[in-house]
Amino acid sequence: MKLLLIGASGTIGSIVHEEMKKDAEIITAGIEQADIIVDMTSPDSIKQMYEQAGPIDAVVNTAGVEHYGFLQEMTPEQNQIAVQSKLSGQINIVLLGMDALSDNGSFTLTTGILMDDPIVKGASAAMANGGVRAFVKSAAIELPRGIRINHVSPTILEASVEKNGHLFPGFEPVSARRVGLAYRK
Amino acid sequence: MKLLLIGASGTIGSIVHEEMKKDAEIITAGIEQADIIVDMTSPDSIKQMYEQAGPIDAVVNTAGVEHYGFLQEMTPEQNQIAVQSKLSGQINIVLLGMDALSDNGSFTLTTGILMDDPIVKGASAAMANGGVRAFVKSAAIELPRGIRINHVSPTILEASVEKNGHLFPGFEPVSARRVGLAYRK
Repeated sequence: MKLLLIGASGTIGSIVHEEMKKDAEIITAGIEQADIIVDMTSPDSIKQMYEQAGPIDAVVNTAGVEHYGFLQEMTPEQNQIAVQSKLSGQINIVLLGMDALSDNGSFTLTTGILMDDPIVKGASAAMANGGVRAFVKSAAIELPRGIRINHVSPTILEASVEKNGHLFPGFEPVSARRVGLAYRK
Repeated sequence: MKLLLIGASGTIGSIVHEEMKKDAEIITAGIEQADIIVDMTSPDSIKQMYEQAGPIDAVVNTAGVEHYGFLQEMTPEQNQIAVQSKLSGQINIVLLGMDALSDNGSFTLTTGILMDDPIVKGASAAMANGGVRAFVKSAAIELPRGIRINHVSPTILEASVEKNGHLFPGFEPVSARRVGLAYRK
């Protein structure tokens, strides 16, 4: 199995890499430190990524940027960060990647718990995640040749508690092991 | 009560106008045929709308454009139609409108059934609606001064069956009466 892993050097991307490396030939992609350099906010860059990768059996995206800040201080420009990256970027990975996937291939995108269980400063991230979830559910009924599409919605990772735990009061962190399994599934 | 109704000349906007006209002073806004002309894809235009409207007690948005088309044919540019209008436009109506709303005021946005019950050709609309729903849920915990936020998610309207019913096979159309009540609530 040939797996294109976008965001491979990130926290979640590294977990997916570790989980899948024995079972798949992994091509890494990302804004840096990857086999293929890609800017997911640019449709042209996504097209070039697929041209470089060639035919693949699975695409996993763990990349995506979001602005975290108080709703009352948030500007339209700050909200556009997640709109262009986590939301439109992930959708364009699907729209531009269908032809690169083999029969019965698979897209796996990344959402997050904030769309269901909000936190202060998380409205823009919630928006992006909720948009991706609804797109995935709808796209699933139209994908050709047995191609599947899913999203994984992690809560805060154990590895991120030290840095970001103060934003997630009372959230039970998830282990790398469980996150890896969710992407494998 | 002073109510700013964006999208007032549309199918749903007209229903909301009829439902609320006895109980509110309604200022209409829209791309045409309205007291205030506004382009919801432009943050500057939204700012000007609020300046023209002055202090208000409630904002209802029923406007928003979406591209309907097969997933396999959809381009990133076509997906951006809903991203800029139904999604970012509605969010910017909130981000730029908080200061215009009185204490205990209210935002009411419009989503739609496709985020929960997909149809062929509806993936971009589903995305926009799912994004708005998640934003609304998250924004609700941060809005100041008792301001509320809600979204209404209609199915196809009885009035739209003749034109668009073929896209919604097996969907039970909703009456104008029920839609009006949902926005009043």
